[in-house]
Amino acid sequence: MKKAVVLLSGGLDSTTTLAIARGNGFACYALSVDYGQRHAAELAAATRIGQLLQVCEHQFLKLDLTVLASSALTDPSVTVPIHGTNRGIPATYVPARNTIMLSLALAWAEVLGSQDIFIGVTAVDYSGYPDCRPDYIDAFEKMANLATKAGREGNLLKVHAPLINLPKHDIIRRGLELGIDYSMTVSCYQADASGWACGQCDACHIRRAGFAAANIPDPTYYQDKR
Amino acid sequence: MKKAVVLLSGGLDSTTTLAIARGNGFACYALSVDYGQRHAAELAAATRIGQLLQVCEHQFLKLDLTVLASSALTDPSVTVPIHGTNRGIPATYVPARNTIMLSLALAWAEVLGSQDIFIGVTAVDYSGYPDCRPDYIDAFEKMANLATKAGREGNLLKVHAPLINLPKHDIIRRGLELGIDYSMTVSCYQADASGWACGQCDACHIRRAGFAAANIPDPTYYQDKR
Repeated sequence: MKKAVVLLSGGLDSTTTLAIARGNGFACYALSVDYGQRHAAELAAATRIGQLLQVCEHQFLKLDLTVLASSALTDPSVTVPIHGTNRGIPATYVPARNTIMLSLALAWAEVLGSQDIFIGVTAVDYSGYPDCRPDYIDAFEKMANLATKAGREGNLLKVHAPLINLPKHDIIRRGLELGIDYSMTVSCYQADASGWACGQCDACHIRRAGFAAANIPDPTYYQDKR
Repeated sequence: MKKAVVLLSGGLDSTTTLAIARGNGFACYALSVDYGQRHAAELAAATRIGQLLQVCEHQFLKLDLTVLASSALTDPSVTVPIHGTNRGIPATYVPARNTIMLSLALAWAEVLGSQDIFIGVTAVDYSGYPDCRPDYIDAFEKMANLATKAGREGNLLKVHAPLINLPKHDIIRRGLELGIDYSMTVSCYQADASGWACGQCDACHIRRAGFAAANIPDPTYYQDKR
C-alpha cells in the first residue's frame, strides 16, 4: 500500500478528503496542526475522525502562530465575522496557513517515503482564500519537488486536492457515499468546548447551505438548536 | 524604511545575511525557528546577534519536528557525521527545513506588510542540500506570490538569498566589511552549551576552510583549541 500524508483539521472538508484518500487505497498518515486556534473542539474532532477512519498514525504538531499573526482565528481580541458582513478575503484568513501546513506535510512525507499529500482545500466556497486555488496548489507541488531529495531524484511528489472544484453539496454527497458521519466533524470557527457550532459564522453558513443544497438533513450540533 | 523578515539561526551565513539586509537599508525583523535542534547554543547566538545588529523585533518560534523527522540534527540517537564520511545529501539534512522556515517568514511578512524575506542559503558549500539552490528559491517565490493576499494584489514578495552564489571565504570577507564579529556566531552542529564548536563536523570543517581560504584568522571558539 502506498503511504499518503493527509492534513486533517477535523472539519467537513478534511474529513471527506481523508475518506477519499482511504477509498483510493492509500495507507493514511494524518497530520493535524495546532497553529493557535481558539477552539480545542476542532482538534478533538480531528482525534475522533482519525480513530474512526483508522489512520495508520496521527501526529499533532503545535505551532503557535499567534506571536506572528493577528487574524480572527488566532487573536481572541478580534471578533469572528458574522456571515455576509465581509467582502474579498475573509478576516478569518490566517497568513500563509496552507503553505505552512503543506510544508509540514512535506517534511513528514519525506520521512515516511511517501509521494502523496492530501489537502481538503476548495476553491468554490472559499474563493476569498488565495491559497485554496488550483494555481497555488500546482506552484506548491513544483516548489516541493525542487525542495526534497526525493523530488530531485525524480520520485515526484503529488499534492492531491480532490475537493478543489467541488461545491459543498457535492462534497457532502461524496462523503456520505464513503460512509462519513458528519455529526462527528466540526467546521465552526467558534465551536464551544463540546464541539457545538455557533451557527452564525461563515463556516457554519456555508456548511448549512451545503446540506440544504444537497437536500440532506444537517446532522451538525448547532447551539441554536440545542 | 522598508521592512524585511530575516531568517536568523545565529550561524555565520544567516548573520552575514542580516548584516547585508541592514546594509541595504531594510528595517529588519529577525525570525529564529527552534525546530528541535539539539543545541541551545545556536539560539543563544541568534539572540546575541539580533541584539548586536539592532533588529526592530526578534521572534522565536518553537516547532518540534522531532516527532516527524529522524535526521542527525534532531534525533539524539543519530550520530552527527564527521566531515568526509558522507556523500551526496548530508545525513544532517532536516526534511523540508527551508520550506518550513520560509513559510513561517512568509506568514510574518504578510502580517508586517513586508515584501522582502532574507535567507542565508548558499549553493556553493552545501551543494548537497536540494533546498539551497537558486531554482528552489525561485519556485518558492512564485508559490508565495500565489499564496498571499499581497502577492495576488500585485505587491510581489521577493525572497533574497544574497549568499547563494558565494563561497564561504567571500561570505566571510563581505561580513567583515560590514563589521561582523564572527566569534559571536555558532555554526557547529554539536556546539556545547557555552557555544564552543566541536571542530569536527561538516559545518566546522567548511567554516575553518573558509577562514583559511580568506587568509583571515579564525576567531571561532573550538573545543580542541580550548
